[in-house]
Amino acid sequence: MEGSMDVQSTSTEARAGAGETMKRIAVLTTGGDAPGMNAAIRAVVRTATHQNVEVLGVLHGWSGLIQGELKPLDSRAVSGIINQGGTILKTARCQEFHTEAGQKRAFETVQQYAIDGMVVIGGNGSFVAAHEFYTRYRVSCIGVPATIDNDINGIDMTFGVDTAVNTALHAIDNIRDTSTSMERVFVIEVMGRNTGYIALTVALAGGCEEVIIPERPYDLNAICQDIAEGHARGKASWIIVVAEGAASAVEIARKITAISGRETRHVVLGHIQRGGRPTAFSRELALRLGGEAVHRLLAGEYDKAVGFCDHQVVTVNLEVAIQKKALDVEGIYRLIRILT
Amino acid sequence: MEGSMDVQSTSTEARAGAGETMKRIAVLTTGGDAPGMNAAIRAVVRTATHQNVEVLGVLHGWSGLIQGELKPLDSRAVSGIINQGGTILKTARCQEFHTEAGQKRAFETVQQYAIDGMVVIGGNGSFVAAHEFYTRYRVSCIGVPATIDNDINGIDMTFGVDTAVNTALHAIDNIRDTSTSMERVFVIEVMGRNTGYIALTVALAGGCEEVIIPERPYDLNAICQDIAEGHARGKASWIIVVAEGAASAVEIARKITAISGRETRHVVLGHIQRGGRPTAFSRELALRLGGEAVHRLLAGEYDKAVGFCDHQVVTVNLEVAIQKKALDVEGIYRLIRILT
Amino acid sequence: MEGSMDVQSTSTEARAGAGETMKRIAVLTTGGDAPGMNAAIRAVVRTATHQNVEVLGVLHGWSGLIQGELKPLDSRAVSGIINQGGTILKTARCQEFHTEAGQKRAFETVQQYAIDGMVVIGGNGSFVAAHEFYTRYRVSCIGVPATIDNDINGIDMTFGVDTAVNTALHAIDNIRDTSTSMERVFVIEVMGRNTGYIALTVALAGGCEEVIIPERPYDLNAICQDIAEGHARGKASWIIVVAEGAASAVEIARKITAISGRETRHVVLGHIQRGGRPTAFSRELALRLGGEAVHRLLAGEYDKAVGFCDHQVVTVNLEVAIQKKALDVEGIYRLIRILT
Amino acid sequence: MEGSMDVQSTSTEARAGAGETMKRIAVLTTGGDAPGMNAAIRAVVRTATHQNVEVLGVLHGWSGLIQGELKPLDSRAVSGIINQGGTILKTARCQEFHTEAGQKRAFETVQQYAIDGMVVIGGNGSFVAAHEFYTRYRVSCIGVPATIDNDINGIDMTFGVDTAVNTALHAIDNIRDTSTSMERVFVIEVMGRNTGYIALTVALAGGCEEVIIPERPYDLNAICQDIAEGHARGKASWIIVVAEGAASAVEIARKITAISGRETRHVVLGHIQRGGRPTAFSRELALRLGGEAVHRLLAGEYDKAVGFCDHQVVTVNLEVAIQKKALDVEGIYRLIRILT
Repeated sequence: MEGSMDVQSTSTEARAGAGETMKRIAVLTTGGDAPGMNAAIRAVVRTATHQNVEVLGVLHGWSGLIQGELKPLDSRAVSGIINQGGTILKTARCQEFHTEAGQKRAFETVQQYAIDGMVVIGGNGSFVAAHEFYTRYRVSCIGVPATIDNDINGIDMTFGVDTAVNTALHAIDNIRDTSTSMERVFVIEVMGRNTGYIALTVALAGGCEEVIIPERPYDLNAICQDIAEGHARGKASWIIVVAEGAASAVEIARKITAISGRETRHVVLGHIQRGGRPTAFSRELALRLGGEAVHRLLAGEYDKAVGFCDHQVVTVNLEVAIQKKALDVEGIYRLIRILT
Repeated sequence: MEGSMDVQSTSTEARAGAGETMKRIAVLTTGGDAPGMNAAIRAVVRTATHQNVEVLGVLHGWSGLIQGELKPLDSRAVSGIINQGGTILKTARCQEFHTEAGQKRAFETVQQYAIDGMVVIGGNGSFVAAHEFYTRYRVSCIGVPATIDNDINGIDMTFGVDTAVNTALHAIDNIRDTSTSMERVFVIEVMGRNTGYIALTVALAGGCEEVIIPERPYDLNAICQDIAEGHARGKASWIIVVAEGAASAVEIARKITAISGRETRHVVLGHIQRGGRPTAFSRELALRLGGEAVHRLLAGEYDKAVGFCDHQVVTVNLEVAIQKKALDVEGIYRLIRILT
Repeated sequence: MEGSMDVQSTSTEARAGAGETMKRIAVLTTGGDAPGMNAAIRAVVRTATHQNVEVLGVLHGWSGLIQGELKPLDSRAVSGIINQGGTILKTARCQEFHTEAGQKRAFETVQQYAIDGMVVIGGNGSFVAAHEFYTRYRVSCIGVPATIDNDINGIDMTFGVDTAVNTALHAIDNIRDTSTSMERVFVIEVMGRNTGYIALTVALAGGCEEVIIPERPYDLNAICQDIAEGHARGKASWIIVVAEGAASAVEIARKITAISGRETRHVVLGHIQRGGRPTAFSRELALRLGGEAVHRLLAGEYDKAVGFCDHQVVTVNLEVAIQKKALDVEGIYRLIRILT
Repeated sequence: MEGSMDVQSTSTEARAGAGETMKRIAVLTTGGDAPGMNAAIRAVVRTATHQNVEVLGVLHGWSGLIQGELKPLDSRAVSGIINQGGTILKTARCQEFHTEAGQKRAFETVQQYAIDGMVVIGGNGSFVAAHEFYTRYRVSCIGVPATIDNDINGIDMTFGVDTAVNTALHAIDNIRDTSTSMERVFVIEVMGRNTGYIALTVALAGGCEEVIIPERPYDLNAICQDIAEGHARGKASWIIVVAEGAASAVEIARKITAISGRETRHVVLGHIQRGGRPTAFSRELALRLGGEAVHRLLAGEYDKAVGFCDHQVVTVNLEVAIQKKALDVEGIYRLIRILT
């Protein structure tokens, strides 16, 4: 991806407004990488190309827009990436873009390259930035929800999350072999930033005994009593899933040992949850949303995110998408407890 | 699972009607096995146990009900099976149950064991049988949709399909390595009985060039012309996915060679798509529907299937569930073609 | 596996000596669990059964021998476990067995159940214990090398290690997606107790830039200089693998940041490396060694471990097997550095 | 990889002889693709570069050498491919190279590009061709054994085979779920050309009941009798593995049904066994042999293949390497039968 910059820059006025016909759009990936980003890039490029719209890929997210790191992407450039994790455009977290000066430089790039609209592939933070960018400079941005955190409001699912959930679940299946064989209490920390979505899903699907998430209070004394009672009935192993947004596995394990006197082990799954070959669902969602984003952008929609809601493609205003997403935890939590 | 039959049989009248309190239910898996069946069994058993309802497991599907192959299942009996493919209760296709004599014998088993209701985990054929059984003998049956074919009408998704799709996709990813390296045309046949759901999904997610499904006509001459044109542009490899319900990969490959003169390879993925460790989504769906089926049955619902529709748990009359499910193929098909 | 103890105990003299015909052997798994243990158990049971020798399974390793937790294992008892991680016999680390009192009680169990010989499936610590047990009580023990640490001297490979290596490698592949996309330095800690075998192998196979192992000194200043030089050439991401026996990933990451000023991320893979479905090679090795152990034991060999050495089955005296195994690191290390 | 040909061709005499210092070598992949080929290419390129030797990549195997499809490969060109299946250099089966005219044209390419030596990554057929090429034109070729068939004589293992074995094993694990649940006889055909290596290994590791390979006769009547006897004992499912070099699964399944009257299912695993992410062992072997091939070539060895034999790197004359490799089947076969 590190080829020379051979994009024709122009000195014409920016055509960043909606309504008129778009000739050139830019695509970037920002924030943490999520499995499916490459599939989304592919869909954006090929859908736009099919509509005779040029695509520029911005490297390194907003930072690359500030620095002018762009390159043209044609159909061939996105061959063979559909099943690759990460992002060929690279990504970065960029503080500078949150300053007025940074956005001004980014806007100068938009003008210089005559970019008519932008597809922003990323998560919550990316959408906050895109909304600011639109608000200040009226650059038509459309968001494609890509994050393993599943924290975009107004839509059902972001596209990296199914892969992350399966990766975490596979890890938990592995750990269960040891937990069962050695009759141990394991505390496993999973990602998800401020939400318990991954934790709740893998705790259910993994047959785990308990889950600790930001969306509901927990009581370590009650958990330890459960363990004691289970032990008395002959139950010998436990897996407790902890969402990173709720607590630290190290801490929880230490406290359980302190309260119960029982040996514990902890595992922090960490960055293995971010990468890897995207699952079918992550790819399907990424491809459909990437294609849809282009159609909506060309149709004059902006300052919105595309997504699925009850199996329908919808757009959600970025202002809404970045609000706290409600997670209905009680039904699942009850099921986890009954199934144990 | 083949322990001796130590269930207390009773001579009391069958309590197969709904409305009164259920004390004992039976669970069986029928038709082709689907990943997640064990998770569903686990959910049925533990949810019922939690409600102080006894559970009998019927071995070998309807056939076991005819033969009286039943065994009690308690919480411990369903430990450690949540991530196992297949079904611990075994399954079978049973012609005898489609006869009056067969159903009569099955009903005698229901009476003998004082079974108040039945959870039937299976696909289309299983639901046809359950509906017949209810119609003739008023045995309260509730269906849990388990099949890789995703052909149950009125609900979004059956629970084995996500696993089957990912298995097929993984196989296609592997084949693409060879297809790209050797610059060949591959024709890959996937399962799905009369529906193109798996084929369409993996063709999209696998970045495949073409897909042949029962839901839409296909034109091999046009496909061969596409290949010729692509070849002229420098495109060197193709993957064509064929749904088993539409055509045979062997046939399609032979015809493409006949028309185009090009060497082809075919692969019939076959039964690898049926087994394997269920994905997170297959397990989640199986667990939630298994639990819900028990709740609905105890609440007096029967002759229905449980399922998700737009993220809500719903019940669908079995008569409706067994109708032909419509699959919206055009949007996805167009996307596949644009993305190529 | 937790059935009632229905083994016929006898008051006859122990027949623990070699040379005479064995009628009943015991098998146990001890120390950390390793993928393939179940395959080894299967091979032990079926090979012995084929020779008309009875097999008792000891639960919970040495601890179960002390407590008298034994159960008969026939061919059917080991069905369907060949591809399962963990161990159906459970395992434990047992301090009591390292005391004279503990071994005395264990020996009483051996006498009580008329056990003629024992197959001990485990790693270094297990072999130390088996050798002590033989030395003190002349119980014929034969060791089957099962550990992910690959630290048994005199043989090529223990049988869990190939699975652990592939699990760690898969995790590293995932992390590389993020490392490349976000252009970060990652420090990844892998298991291996006092040896760098896993670390060295995954660093090579994972295309990692650096590896820190107990077998050779490392210089963080030199590593940071490499990173700086690479960065100047345009290289943007690094993965440094750390063997748990050499250092802590947290510490190494912290120090690299301190020296270089560069942001780092660390991941401790931990217990995901222990479990999971064994690879083909882990199963093959487990099955062959399990079978061979029985043959050797029945042929009067004891106080030894079985293993492969240059593709030949060999036995190694336990005293030798527990010595420090030399690992030829320089060739591989040089290759890792050249390939970067 | 399809960039323009910007290699400096020269009119100087070919320096294809050994002994003098090499300045430029070529690398190609030929025959069927094997997982690890990309890792081997990476090792060849980076090892040569480290020795200040230029590397040209030949596209499409021998065919590309005839057509003059070459491109320079530097260290960066082989980034990020270590874990990719297939080959970035493409491969082909080339009849023309087996003619005198074809080889003459290929030799002209060698002279034109001033190629001092060649690394030939491939299997048996590739080595036959390389040996012919050396014999006729004295082009220094060194072979790197890459094939899933494991049929190179004089060395322990070729580098794609471990991946193919694990892929086939995973498929068999999946099929076992259905075989067990539906109590069926499955016949599964695996690859391996004229050898039974894959079949024998997966039959053992997969806990399969029977295996049919080219290296030993088989008796379908005896197999059907085994099935009948097993059935009488309560055994309900069978998996019979067939090597493609011995028989066709379709045929075997048909005959078993004809003899036994029992329903059977067949699966031909086919090309899924060729691709996919290489396992740790496939990568390690590919990297070590790729590096070693360069060292040997630069040291003046040619007309040989590199390989491991009893954990030592060795070279084997191509004439020997292409002989029929003996496979010791009886020990493994007996074990398979005992373990059933």
